[in-house]
Amino acid sequence: MTDAEKIAQLGSTWPDHDDGGDVAPMQETFRGADRFEEAIVDGLGQLTRVFGTAPIDPEAGRRRLTALQEQVVAANRFGIPAVAHEECLTGFFTWQATVYPTPLAWAATFNPELVGRMAQAIGSDMAAVGVHQGLAPVLDVVRDYRWGRVEETLGEDPYLVSELGLAYVQGLQSSGVVATLKHFAGYSASRAARNHAPAVLGPRELADVILVPFEKAVVAGRVRSVMNAYNDIDGVPCGADEVLLTGLLRDTWGFEGTVVSDYWAVAFLASMHHVADDVTGAARAALRAGIDVELPHTSGYGEALLDDGVPTDLLDRAVLRVLTQKAELGLLDPDWKPGQYTAPADFDSPRNRGIARDLAEQSVVLLDNPSGALPLASPRSVAVIGPAADDARCLFGCYSFPNHVLPHHPETPLGVEAPTVLDAIRQEFPDASVHHETGCSFTGDDRSGIEAAVAAASAADLTILVVGDRSGMFGEGTSGEGCDVGALTLPGGQEDLVDAVLDAANQTVLVLVSGRPYAIGRHARAADATLQAFFPGEEGSAAIAGVLSGRINPSGHLPVQVPGDTAGQPGTYLAPPLALKSDGVSNIDPTPAFPFGHGLSYTTFTIEDVEADAETIAVDGSVTVRATFTNTGPRAGTSVPQLYLTDPVASVTRPVRQLIGFTRIELAAGDSRTVEFQVHADLTSFTGQDLRRCVEPGRLVLTVAQSAGEPGRSVEVELRGDTRVVDHTRTMTTAVTILPS
Amino acid sequence: MTDAEKIAQLGSTWPDHDDGGDVAPMQETFRGADRFEEAIVDGLGQLTRVFGTAPIDPEAGRRRLTALQEQVVAANRFGIPAVAHEECLTGFFTWQATVYPTPLAWAATFNPELVGRMAQAIGSDMAAVGVHQGLAPVLDVVRDYRWGRVEETLGEDPYLVSELGLAYVQGLQSSGVVATLKHFAGYSASRAARNHAPAVLGPRELADVILVPFEKAVVAGRVRSVMNAYNDIDGVPCGADEVLLTGLLRDTWGFEGTVVSDYWAVAFLASMHHVADDVTGAARAALRAGIDVELPHTSGYGEALLDDGVPTDLLDRAVLRVLTQKAELGLLDPDWKPGQYTAPADFDSPRNRGIARDLAEQSVVLLDNPSGALPLASPRSVAVIGPAADDARCLFGCYSFPNHVLPHHPETPLGVEAPTVLDAIRQEFPDASVHHETGCSFTGDDRSGIEAAVAAASAADLTILVVGDRSGMFGEGTSGEGCDVGALTLPGGQEDLVDAVLDAANQTVLVLVSGRPYAIGRHARAADATLQAFFPGEEGSAAIAGVLSGRINPSGHLPVQVPGDTAGQPGTYLAPPLALKSDGVSNIDPTPAFPFGHGLSYTTFTIEDVEADAETIAVDGSVTVRATFTNTGPRAGTSVPQLYLTDPVASVTRPVRQLIGFTRIELAAGDSRTVEFQVHADLTSFTGQDLRRCVEPGRLVLTVAQSAGEPGRSVEVELRGDTRVVDHTRTMTTAVTILPS
Repeated sequence: MTDAEKIAQLGSTWPDHDDGGDVAPMQETFRGADRFEEAIVDGLGQLTRVFGTAPIDPEAGRRRLTALQEQVVAANRFGIPAVAHEECLTGFFTWQATVYPTPLAWAATFNPELVGRMAQAIGSDMAAVGVHQGLAPVLDVVRDYRWGRVEETLGEDPYLVSELGLAYVQGLQSSGVVATLKHFAGYSASRAARNHAPAVLGPRELADVILVPFEKAVVAGRVRSVMNAYNDIDGVPCGADEVLLTGLLRDTWGFEGTVVSDYWAVAFLASMHHVADDVTGAARAALRAGIDVELPHTSGYGEALLDDGVPTDLLDRAVLRVLTQKAELGLLDPDWKPGQYTAPADFDSPRNRGIARDLAEQSVVLLDNPSGALPLASPRSVAVIGPAADDARCLFGCYSFPNHVLPHHPETPLGVEAPTVLDAIRQEFPDASVHHETGCSFTGDDRSGIEAAVAAASAADLTILVVGDRSGMFGEGTSGEGCDVGALTLPGGQEDLVDAVLDAANQTVLVLVSGRPYAIGRHARAADATLQAFFPGEEGSAAIAGVLSGRINPSGHLPVQVPGDTAGQPGTYLAPPLALKSDGVSNIDPTPAFPFGHGLSYTTFTIEDVEADAETIAVDGSVTVRATFTNTGPRAGTSVPQLYLTDPVASVTRPVRQLIGFTRIELAAGDSRTVEFQVHADLTSFTGQDLRRCVEPGRLVLTVAQSAGEPGRSVEVELRGDTRVVDHTRTMTTAVTILPS
Repeated sequence: MTDAEKIAQLGSTWPDHDDGGDVAPMQETFRGADRFEEAIVDGLGQLTRVFGTAPIDPEAGRRRLTALQEQVVAANRFGIPAVAHEECLTGFFTWQATVYPTPLAWAATFNPELVGRMAQAIGSDMAAVGVHQGLAPVLDVVRDYRWGRVEETLGEDPYLVSELGLAYVQGLQSSGVVATLKHFAGYSASRAARNHAPAVLGPRELADVILVPFEKAVVAGRVRSVMNAYNDIDGVPCGADEVLLTGLLRDTWGFEGTVVSDYWAVAFLASMHHVADDVTGAARAALRAGIDVELPHTSGYGEALLDDGVPTDLLDRAVLRVLTQKAELGLLDPDWKPGQYTAPADFDSPRNRGIARDLAEQSVVLLDNPSGALPLASPRSVAVIGPAADDARCLFGCYSFPNHVLPHHPETPLGVEAPTVLDAIRQEFPDASVHHETGCSFTGDDRSGIEAAVAAASAADLTILVVGDRSGMFGEGTSGEGCDVGALTLPGGQEDLVDAVLDAANQTVLVLVSGRPYAIGRHARAADATLQAFFPGEEGSAAIAGVLSGRINPSGHLPVQVPGDTAGQPGTYLAPPLALKSDGVSNIDPTPAFPFGHGLSYTTFTIEDVEADAETIAVDGSVTVRATFTNTGPRAGTSVPQLYLTDPVASVTRPVRQLIGFTRIELAAGDSRTVEFQVHADLTSFTGQDLRRCVEPGRLVLTVAQSAGEPGRSVEVELRGDTRVVDHTRTMTTAVTILPS
């Protein structure tokens, strides 16, 4: 291969994409080839979003991708096709494809098996039409609820993110599609929660919180691609960070796939971070650091870089990785043909909808139900109020085709069937008289509907307040990429709407449908019951309505805290004592309204007979903790046993509680089952004062609970031996067994 | 000396101090000797706050300290007295002593010479009565305006903090009193701005922002004591951080004085940070890390530690430092006597008041005066409105005797003369009819006075709205230690008051008297003129009134940004591009209402003929930048020339602008003077990717301006040579010369 042919394998192109005015600073740095024919003359590394750029139906998309691949294959003398990548965070990111719940909702299920099934379904739909790589999952651990992309994450606990992320990677890759870890690393820890802003992190927080899920997906999940994060960490942009992209990822963790740039991130090294003079210098820095493929459109990985004298070893290193991946995908097989993907494509199949329904049903969190207002007895007159009640877009995340692309194609229908919450309530309560008022807008100051909303609430037996977010990109949404907020108050006029309606209504159920937790402590105290749904996808409304009626017994648990008030950000439950409530020290109380892991059911569970199989274990040993869960309430339900670690004294400050195991357990009324957590000492490891990961001897408290905020039942064990250095890996999973009854 | 005698030199006691209910979590860990006689049996390291604990007049205080020292000397067989320490942040922290402006106000003067004079005056008052050590200055660089202790700092720029901190250290120590750097390190970078919460910092931010002023005070200022910070940095509590307290401070910087613990910080290692089993373990960790003296009361540095087997080398190391300092203070001289301090004591002398007045006058910042509403022509009827208008406590910081101690002695008078802003306005405008309304409270929801305030404003020709903070400890204030806030809205009912009054008044001057900047963008746009005073001390009201009348031409400049709105926290002007406004990336715009360094005058200044004496300089060279300032307005005034560094491309992300030089220059109407900044290349240094401090070759932009937010006038120079490692010191000061006219 010539150098030009090599570098062409590191580039990409985005056919027919108009950069648009909404990404202004990106435009400045956009130096891609204008015409597809020019872009592919020496070959092409990747084809960007052939399906996901504009509405195209499955069959037309397949034909289009086939045609483009034929052009690519014909243009280069080796006949090497491109890797076709698409977004796939909440489903295959294309028109008429199932829109699954947003990742924060998957996280609320605490159900890796189900997440894996979803990912396998997404992957098989993509693979069926010749797409090779999906840009998911997002493994950023939430550090600040104000960040716009919280909805895309799996919450604020590294263990939960790891387990669910691993399941997604294994599920997607089992279909033959390359999974891509996003965003490596630190993106969620940006200063003041602003998108792209510097991540303020020390090396210990980076290692013990941010990197954990990535390590597991690489080491245990054998993920095949990783995407760099836009941000810098303490001054070093991730896209130019050789220590991160090569030293840690490859040399330490053994990653063997490709590193792709986040869109435009190579050029951003010059235009936004100012660590390079121009895009050529940016490309040189990125290639040296370890970015193999530039997305979404070649700007730096081109001729200027070759002219500038890129070292052959760096070029060869990246090309070898790209070609190896193409070989693994079968793209270099002699019998591979652009037109080989011919199976019938239904991107919104009954299988998909079933998985979407299961996820939605398991993800709705019953936050509060103090007087048993839920489930609803047959209500006669219902006022359904709020801007999220009758808007299908409120069911979807930002990285869904309907919320990302369709706003630019207002004439195009949604492409999937997605009843609104209002529709679903009408369906669920066919005998009720249902009246709807929007009340206010999501953005701006329009509160003109509050008066009518108050009147409707006063007149009805029951009011269902449906408030939260409408997700979109940048200015288009209240949650989503770039939709960062200054305070965790409900967007637009919704605070005033909720206050007014709660004041006027006879009985109120507050339903949050949002992409982040909001500080709703005050509202929840005033409401008769409170539900939290994170964008629940196309089957989500029926799940919400089913929980309201009692058709579904809620089993979702919070993957993030719900803050009590708007102070105390950034905050996380994963905190040492001084980051929690500290009377006489700070008058800011960060105690949440509802803790991490919290979620009620229409039945009740007790935890008894918590015991460990040993009082002491070695620093490289294991302990088994058993606990008996009993359904003491009136109906069948699902409990989510959680195992928390407390390390009472350590050589560095440690979180007061930290999740190290969980499962789901279905119990009929009156039934009991014993759950066994088999915990390896590695799960107690942390980054010591010398910045090496270690297991430290000493006393540990292991607590079985149904949230991080309840006392639960604890056992103590002691780790014995000398401090043990763990070889930079913390990839253990707590095996959880539900013993036969 | 026996080990018991040695460890007694590392301890302290706080005679007659009642721990009180307001420091609840501290109480738990308080294990001090109950009776003074017991505490001093083997000697005593330090006597805590003999003057500063309860109201005592100067003469009685001196007698009491003498008597206590006589007891200490008599109790130990070597006759070694204790070091007597007091707080002295805004003046000698005792009753009837001058209350100077708070440090944030000194910083607004941009006048190190004046700060040095103040510190020398404070020190001479303390030395005169036998006090040896003062617990100031605070060198924490502001990272989050929501933090309660912002008022105690010198602002958000490390260079400004360094220069003023150095002046304070040199001034205080010139009087023979030991200065104490607080708080080492990272305290201001606590998560969510909560007091004591973990500092979230990477090593580069720590080195390039937080440590800079400490290094200068140690290396250039030869400070004699350092106090550890309460917080942890990335998991390692500062009080147990050997790398920080010994490796960096002593081995690298060459510090030879004593390290004292912040109050109770030794015990907190066990009780709050959980890095030790008990207070004995905490003491062992602290002693090993490098804390020599435990304040304010021995808890860990006692017999239990000896019984536990403290290594002799650690004990001897600390004792040697303590005794060396006592020798330097003359306390080991044969002719030293407890009763030798006999000069007449007047802690609020005319000299002091003169310095306090100069500081106050130079610190008031004229933020906005769009239509020349200020200075006021003789107003006939004036409404003075707001809770800060007629409350002397609003003039003082939290670490002042009146706000810290007197609230617990409500019968005791203030002890110094301190007219309120209302008093001063009446004095300044004797012909005006002045009507006062409080309007609302600082805390809680009392808005009952707004109606009367609106009526008063409507009836008056002119309204002066005086709003801001009332400082105090924890729950007692709206600013001050523990008085952290969730959002930068004016406390209590003041937002509503300001809105209502601005709406009703004929002409309004908004006067902020506060301990932190508030997000007043909206209010400033509605007001006719806006002033910002940071707690200006006992002479502060006259300074404010004098600026209103024009008797004083304002010359204060902002040492912190004034935010535009409440989003974007934490924030700082010292930011790379992606931490600033970034359209299309984040919808949170952190652009301030008024930038760092901003401050208007009643005259105007132009900057012309900016030139450098070289186009290229060596990486270890210097460049001289000249600029001519002309007073183009109608009256004499003081400009504050500021020199900003921009490093357009570097190997890590760099602030878009960074202060590297400043001065004050008085100019008669029409006059011109040329200012010369002599900049050493060291001032362009930063922490590189390898975590070593370096000067990097390349293009630099040097801008002379009157704030960080205005374009100013720039010159470019190029640094030539190889990247040069700077030996962990960045202690250069830009020499500024005002050339003869």
